[in-house]
Amino acid sequence: MKKTASKSAFYAQSGGVSAVINASACGVIETALRSKRIDKVYAGRDGIIGALTEDLIDCGRESAATIRGLRHTPAGAFGSARFKLKGLDQNRAEYERLIEVFRAHNIGYFFYNGGNDSMDTAHKVSQIGESLGYPMTCVGVPKTVDNDLPHTDCCPGFGSVAKYVAVSTREASMDVASMARTSTKVFVMEVMGRHAGWIAAAAGLAGRGADETPHVILFPEVPFERQRFLERVRQCVTDFGYCVIVVSEGAAYADGKFLADAGTRDAFGHTQLGGVGPVVANMVREAHGYKYHWAVADYLQRSARHIASKVDAEQAYAVGRAAVELAVKGVNAVMPTIVRKSSKPYRWVIGHIPLAEVANKEKKLPADYIREDGFGITAACRRYLEPLIAGEAYPPYRNGLPDYVRIKGVAVRRKLKTDFKI
Amino acid sequence: MKKTASKSAFYAQSGGVSAVINASACGVIETALRSKRIDKVYAGRDGIIGALTEDLIDCGRESAATIRGLRHTPAGAFGSARFKLKGLDQNRAEYERLIEVFRAHNIGYFFYNGGNDSMDTAHKVSQIGESLGYPMTCVGVPKTVDNDLPHTDCCPGFGSVAKYVAVSTREASMDVASMARTSTKVFVMEVMGRHAGWIAAAAGLAGRGADETPHVILFPEVPFERQRFLERVRQCVTDFGYCVIVVSEGAAYADGKFLADAGTRDAFGHTQLGGVGPVVANMVREAHGYKYHWAVADYLQRSARHIASKVDAEQAYAVGRAAVELAVKGVNAVMPTIVRKSSKPYRWVIGHIPLAEVANKEKKLPADYIREDGFGITAACRRYLEPLIAGEAYPPYRNGLPDYVRIKGVAVRRKLKTDFKI
Repeated sequence: MKKTASKSAFYAQSGGVSAVINASACGVIETALRSKRIDKVYAGRDGIIGALTEDLIDCGRESAATIRGLRHTPAGAFGSARFKLKGLDQNRAEYERLIEVFRAHNIGYFFYNGGNDSMDTAHKVSQIGESLGYPMTCVGVPKTVDNDLPHTDCCPGFGSVAKYVAVSTREASMDVASMARTSTKVFVMEVMGRHAGWIAAAAGLAGRGADETPHVILFPEVPFERQRFLERVRQCVTDFGYCVIVVSEGAAYADGKFLADAGTRDAFGHTQLGGVGPVVANMVREAHGYKYHWAVADYLQRSARHIASKVDAEQAYAVGRAAVELAVKGVNAVMPTIVRKSSKPYRWVIGHIPLAEVANKEKKLPADYIREDGFGITAACRRYLEPLIAGEAYPPYRNGLPDYVRIKGVAVRRKLKTDFKI
Repeated sequence: MKKTASKSAFYAQSGGVSAVINASACGVIETALRSKRIDKVYAGRDGIIGALTEDLIDCGRESAATIRGLRHTPAGAFGSARFKLKGLDQNRAEYERLIEVFRAHNIGYFFYNGGNDSMDTAHKVSQIGESLGYPMTCVGVPKTVDNDLPHTDCCPGFGSVAKYVAVSTREASMDVASMARTSTKVFVMEVMGRHAGWIAAAAGLAGRGADETPHVILFPEVPFERQRFLERVRQCVTDFGYCVIVVSEGAAYADGKFLADAGTRDAFGHTQLGGVGPVVANMVREAHGYKYHWAVADYLQRSARHIASKVDAEQAYAVGRAAVELAVKGVNAVMPTIVRKSSKPYRWVIGHIPLAEVANKEKKLPADYIREDGFGITAACRRYLEPLIAGEAYPPYRNGLPDYVRIKGVAVRRKLKTDFKI
């Protein structure tokens, strides 16, 4: 029997989703449902918006099979939101509303599954609860495909997008290699990562050296030099018969201008919001006239649960479980982290760090992870990345398609009379 | 002991490669190496170019493990070529050269692995050999991701691209659905298929009806009507909160003009060779202002051996094996076909058809496979497609990446004194 003095828990997904954010949800929910210290387990419909609008999903009404199935289901099963709470000074009402809803539903645990911004929000909620006389235990659950959270070896979500990008680069490269003599000579693949080149770096795992694909990686960290790039492409086509280029959406010139901002106009004179992939491909065509193809993986890369990394899926579950374990022990305002104990073999444990130290900070690709010519990754980078894409964690299939689960999403009866406009 | 009277075999890959064309190569080579009727087994380096330039690969010098590994290796392990032999009247020299090389190496069996064009070439080679007094047994091995070969239930290569597209559509749709409330409302995915909508149709497997994703498929077979399309998109966003669009690269207006030919110009006034994906996305943005994302899978879709269809991989091997079995029985100028015996459960056998009946013909998507509103697939289409993506045929992995094989590619000693310029 649960004690009536126990508090309920609230879980929400935040920001761009990933192939394994639901595995973290599963870790949180399974652990919370089992915990004697936690009464009900709720999730926000569409993330924090569900809390603000008092639209709570009762996780206890989902079957155990559905909750378990979250572990192999991509995207945000409860809905996520790109919704950053403003600073306390600018919009105190939002924070007060959160506390009002949490108080109405006897919620004492707040688990926020997201990136830098979300860790900041979780931190603020823990502060405001205190100051409003409703202390909350707030624990962040790390998630970002960009891998830019500090103080953790890696970030759940990244390993799977890294695996997708490495596998796709290897496969497409083999395609180009087999056709290059009479057809496509240059292939460009655009990947995510607006501020940091972690995802682009993962493409480097597809080949072992500068003579293997991808022949060129364009990182956001390395200022783009048109001539040097074009010369490298020409050299690759001469030496290897073809050239495979992986470009980060954040690739930019030395003055900070994105390559994707190519000044192209459509028939009506509107700015053409192109991807950087076609921009780079056109640049090569104009300079060298090579036949080219380009791909933009976009959401495919971050939702590709079918090729998720086993390590990533396990870490995603583990940080979710750890978040609850920390919370019920009374550890407040922290985020579980992944601590690497060794690379070969890869061994990791769960640690934790105060939210204040994570909030709004970004971890860039270290300089010594980028090859001296700026077009590839170093052995150190490979040592770091390789364990993160290890193992396959295939979902079950049905009629040839992954059998992903869908929640029922039964709403908890509202207790407040007031609405809240987002 | 092989009899000295026996002839050698020549195998070549042709046209765009696929996730399973090497499985056909494996079927041909394993069967030919085992056959008492066949002496040596050669493959053309870079397809038919290898025959014209007398650049033959000795398959007998590859390890059994490498040959076996072709079954799980994408792209063209021997090199493929976009090289169409001209008509006999225009370039008799090319055909005569082929026969010269075949005669020099005692090659009596020609296995040509490709699409419509290649079946035409195989047919011509069998005719010219006859007229030059060097009769050849020529058997086509069907391959095309476009699924547009007639007289066969489906075409090896298609099932895997179909599975990739269906899986990716399902995954990306879940991503968009979970973010739509505060972020991306419209997602556009561009897929291959310049002349026929088979690949686009496969995306329809991701959902079960007009209310499930993809909400809109734009087929080459259905003339594009801008207003009707934009209205459908608006309705989907209103009804479901978001809209997922899959567009075939061959989507066109009633006058035949491709959507991809959008008249866009880059900063220098050059025609912007854009994909149709961004064109459609921009069209939606201009009309409705919705936040959008787009993906162009390009080569990723046809090289994605990691998510190949098991049925497809098996059929690819089976047509390769059958080609050799037919040839050694003396059946000439044919192509093995897949004959569907039943859909539920899916049962198929191998048949064959004269090359003359396949050459240069295209199989379009039947009208009754397209939903009446033109934006989706019918139940009949689903019945046809579903078995083709059934089952997974995962490659082995090593360090987190598929362990694809690479051939040694030992060249056969040349016997002719003459070179041939391509």
